[in-house]
Amino acid sequence: MRLRNKPWAKEELAKYPEIVVQRPDLHKGKWQELFGNCHPIHIEVGTGKGQFLTGMAQQYPNVNFIGIEKYETVLLTALERAKSLKLPNLRFLNEDVIDLLQFFETDDLSRVYINFTDPWPKNRHEKRRLTYKDFLALYEQLLKSDGEIHFKTDNQGLFEYSLESFSRFGLIIKNVSLNLHKSQFEGNIMTEYEEKFSKKGMRIYRCEASFKEK
Amino acid sequence: MRLRNKPWAKEELAKYPEIVVQRPDLHKGKWQELFGNCHPIHIEVGTGKGQFLTGMAQQYPNVNFIGIEKYETVLLTALERAKSLKLPNLRFLNEDVIDLLQFFETDDLSRVYINFTDPWPKNRHEKRRLTYKDFLALYEQLLKSDGEIHFKTDNQGLFEYSLESFSRFGLIIKNVSLNLHKSQFEGNIMTEYEEKFSKKGMRIYRCEASFKEK
Ligand SMILES: C[S@@+](CC[C@H](N)C(=O)[O-])C[C@H]1O[C@@H](n2cnc3c(N)ncnc32)[C@H](O)[C@@H]1O
Ligand SMILES: C[S@@+](CC[C@H](N)C(=O)[O-])C[C@H]1O[C@@H](n2cnc3c(N)ncnc32)[C@H](O)[C@@H]1O
Repeated sequence: MRLRNKPWAKEELAKYPEIVVQRPDLHKGKWQELFGNCHPIHIEVGTGKGQFLTGMAQQYPNVNFIGIEKYETVLLTALERAKSLKLPNLRFLNEDVIDLLQFFETDDLSRVYINFTDPWPKNRHEKRRLTYKDFLALYEQLLKSDGEIHFKTDNQGLFEYSLESFSRFGLIIKNVSLNLHKSQFEGNIMTEYEEKFSKKGMRIYRCEASFKEK
Repeated sequence: MRLRNKPWAKEELAKYPEIVVQRPDLHKGKWQELFGNCHPIHIEVGTGKGQFLTGMAQQYPNVNFIGIEKYETVLLTALERAKSLKLPNLRFLNEDVIDLLQFFETDDLSRVYINFTDPWPKNRHEKRRLTYKDFLALYEQLLKSDGEIHFKTDNQGLFEYSLESFSRFGLIIKNVSLNLHKSQFEGNIMTEYEEKFSKKGMRIYRCEASFKEK
């Protein structure tokens, strides 16, 4: 069983406030001050152990990345990874995505990454999926008008669901890949789950969705 | 090489005007008179040898089906199939889909089926794909406001393209299946190409798209 709300883990995270932002609400609307530049901000929701975002932060120094993960024990691994690398453009929040409006305001974000998010296959759990319409409404509220959602998953049912959810919400779906690792897509950074599932021979699905035609 | 514009084939088709409608332009806006009822009209564009539409016409006697196929030699096989079955709710047109506006008018159609249409994989041939925006505009013009497009293909690239094309056009994508034959979908009628490609172990992709949220 996954360990939840471990006080020792929370304390450990708190020791590195330069990586795990302790009071994200205080930075609402002024994240660029914290990063000390005007670069666009990309967040990853359900960032897990941080492999993707750490790789992205290395590959794109002119983008600021913030990973959001609710389980402190999972985020500890991300912290370990980030500590040694000392990347100025990478932060993590030990928070629940549902509370996003407490930490960000309109136009704070340029992109939202959703990677291998829990599929919650039962219909009655639809509302927990991070591509459910209520979450899309949150992202819409925080993203700049030309902002985008970038989504990857190995889960066929979740991908089918998410395409429909994006479409119903009025998002424009772009750059669909139904087999990412056999596609022309360049510069892909693998997440932990992506490595695990693609090793098992599973297809990886990917798409982008935007709120506005550019 | 595929044989085109064979006069003998055209003559053969003309012998069965009760199945292959010879002057579809004369029925524009009054197809229900020809069928002698008020049932909704579903067309299949690029109907090929007619296996799908013949099966559908048997399964749904309260829907009128019209298959459109530009190659007469291909349509001859559909004619053979239909001759013995004498289905009152099935017709074929030996026409090019590009000319759809000559045969149908606004609100004539309730559904458009696009099955295993030629993928035209080269970018410069995009305009020939039956899910290209100009074709979508034709379908939109002829479909009732709650009309739908139902699309199947084995071709991954064409499915990716078509999802994007539907989305960009403002269509709402529904009931996506990324592996139709392993899905819960009931009552599927296979086309010739579907049989051929699924026997080879290829996945079949399917989705629906509507112009209006019902
Ligand atoms: C299946 S893992 C994938 C992790 C990583 N993105 C990857 O691709 O390897 C999903 C992660 O999202 C986190 N998560 C799920 N819902 C969340 C929420 N509402 N707020 C924050 N994190 C969430 C989970 O705790 C878990 O670590
Ligand atoms: C690959 S076959 C598929 C046939 C059938 N739908 C199936 O699934 O087995 C595509 C068919 O569409 C027809 N077709 C392609 N473009 C067309 C057009 N613009 N007008 C009419 N028929 C067309 C072709 O002649 C061909 O018979």
